[in-house]
Amino acid sequence: MKKSSSDPIGVFDSGLGGLTVLKELIRVLPNERIIYLGDTARVPYGNKSHETVIRYAFENTRFLLRRGIKLLIIACNTASAYSMNAVKDAFDVHSLGVIQPGARAAVQSTRSGKVAIIGTSGTILSKAYPRAIHDLNRDIMTYEKACPLFVPLVEEGWMDHEVTEMVARSYLGSMIGKEIDTLILGCTHYPLLKVVISRVMGPDVRLVDSAEETAKEAKTLLQGINLLAPDHSEGGYQVFVTDLPQQFSNVASLFLGMDRVPVERVIVDEIV
Amino acid sequence: MKKSSSDPIGVFDSGLGGLTVLKELIRVLPNERIIYLGDTARVPYGNKSHETVIRYAFENTRFLLRRGIKLLIIACNTASAYSMNAVKDAFDVHSLGVIQPGARAAVQSTRSGKVAIIGTSGTILSKAYPRAIHDLNRDIMTYEKACPLFVPLVEEGWMDHEVTEMVARSYLGSMIGKEIDTLILGCTHYPLLKVVISRVMGPDVRLVDSAEETAKEAKTLLQGINLLAPDHSEGGYQVFVTDLPQQFSNVASLFLGMDRVPVERVIVDEIV
Repeated sequence: MKKSSSDPIGVFDSGLGGLTVLKELIRVLPNERIIYLGDTARVPYGNKSHETVIRYAFENTRFLLRRGIKLLIIACNTASAYSMNAVKDAFDVHSLGVIQPGARAAVQSTRSGKVAIIGTSGTILSKAYPRAIHDLNRDIMTYEKACPLFVPLVEEGWMDHEVTEMVARSYLGSMIGKEIDTLILGCTHYPLLKVVISRVMGPDVRLVDSAEETAKEAKTLLQGINLLAPDHSEGGYQVFVTDLPQQFSNVASLFLGMDRVPVERVIVDEIV
Repeated sequence: MKKSSSDPIGVFDSGLGGLTVLKELIRVLPNERIIYLGDTARVPYGNKSHETVIRYAFENTRFLLRRGIKLLIIACNTASAYSMNAVKDAFDVHSLGVIQPGARAAVQSTRSGKVAIIGTSGTILSKAYPRAIHDLNRDIMTYEKACPLFVPLVEEGWMDHEVTEMVARSYLGSMIGKEIDTLILGCTHYPLLKVVISRVMGPDVRLVDSAEETAKEAKTLLQGINLLAPDHSEGGYQVFVTDLPQQFSNVASLFLGMDRVPVERVIVDEIV
C-alpha cells in the first residue's frame, strides 16, 4: 500500500525495554508520530523459542499495520534476532531491527578487531550479532555471553547495587584481558546498566547502545525512501501495552526518563 | 459432568516451577494419572496483572478440561492467588490451589504466631496468603516480602551462589529478629533455594513448601469425594508445555529431579 510521509512509525518490543529506542526516536525524529507497542502480557521473549517469538512478532506487526505505519521498528533484540527475516518475508512494510545498526556501529568503532556481545539467551543463541558483524567484516573476532539476570535486575531497580556489580563480574569476567575494545549492549534493558558494565569492563571499552544507533538508522532510511515527516509537522507518541500490571508506571518512567507515561491497554492475540 | 476415579488429575503452572508439585503428587498419589500443563510461552505470571493472569488461567483450565480431568490443581502461586475464585465460579470441576494448603500448614506450624510469606510481586500484592491465614486464625501476625529475583536466580541455576545469598539477605534482612518461626515459600521455584533461605533466616524458622502440602491436600480431597484411583491402577504423568525453548530440558530436570522429562508442545491461546 502507498505510504505517506505523514503516516506514523510503528515500534514494538517484548515489553518496556524498547522505550529506550522510543526515547531516542523522539530525540532524533521530533516531527514524527510514533506508535509503540509493548507486549507486556507475554514478556520476556529472551527465554522463549524461535517459533514462539516469530508468532508474537507477527501478531504485534499486524496490530501496528492496522494503524497504517510507514516504517516498522523491532526494538527488541530477541525479536529482531529471531523474527526480522520472517517479518520482512511476510509483510509489505519497510522495517528495521536493532541488530544491524548495533553491529554496524561496533564494526566502525573497533580498533583491536575484538568485539563482545551481551544479550538474552535467545539473542546469543541466535548468533544474529556475529553474523551481522561478519557480513560487514569477516576478520573481526566476536565474544558472546548471555546475561539472563540483567533484565530482572533492571526491573527490580537495582541499577547500581552491589549485587548487580557481582553479577556483572561473574558474567563478564572471562572477557577481560582479551583486547576487546567494543561491547554491544544487545538488549534494550542493558543501557540502564552502563555504569556497572563500564566499571567491570574498564574505561577503554566502548559500549554500543543499539537504541541510539537504531534511531539514527531510522532517520537515514526514511530520508532514503522519501518518507521523512516534514519539518513543520507535529510529532508525538502513543504507547500501547498488552498488560498493565500494578508497578507498570515506575518501570515505564525508568525507561522513558519521563515522569508519567500515558498508556492504553490492548489485546493482540485474540484478533484473527 | 460425572467424573470417574480413573479420570486424570490436571495440573497447570505458569511454567516449570509447578513440576515441584507434580513431583510430590507422583510420590503421594502413585496410582493417579496426572496431566501437567506449563504455560512456558507466557511465563512468568508473577509480574502480570490480575486480569491477564485470570485470562491465562481460564485458557489453561479449558485445555485440561478437554482431557476429562476429575480434579484441577493450580500449581502456581500467582495464578492461585489471582484466579482460584474466578476458576471455581466459571468451571464445574473440583479444584485446589497452593495458597490454602500452604496457609493451613503455616497456621499449624507456628508457635510464636508470627508467619512470614515470600513470593512474586503478584502473589504478595494479592494478599491471598494473609487472607487465607487470617480466615483460619485472625491473631497471627504476617510479614510479607516480594522476591522477584529468586525465580531468575533459580532458572540461572545459581541455587547456592554467593549472589543468591546476598540477594536473600537483602530481601529477608528486615524479617530477622521479629520472632518469626514459620516462613511460607510462596512460589514453586523457592523450594530450590531452601538451603540459602534457611541459612539467612536461621535454623529455628520452619520453611513451608506449598508443593508438599498441596499434594497431601489433593489426596484428602479425592478421598473425600470418593474419586481416588484404586490401588491396582497404574499411575503416570504427561507433561504439556506451550513453548519448548532450547534450554528447556535442563530446567525441567532440575524441578522434577529426573534425568529426562518427555514433553509435548501445545498452543492454548489459539483454541476458541
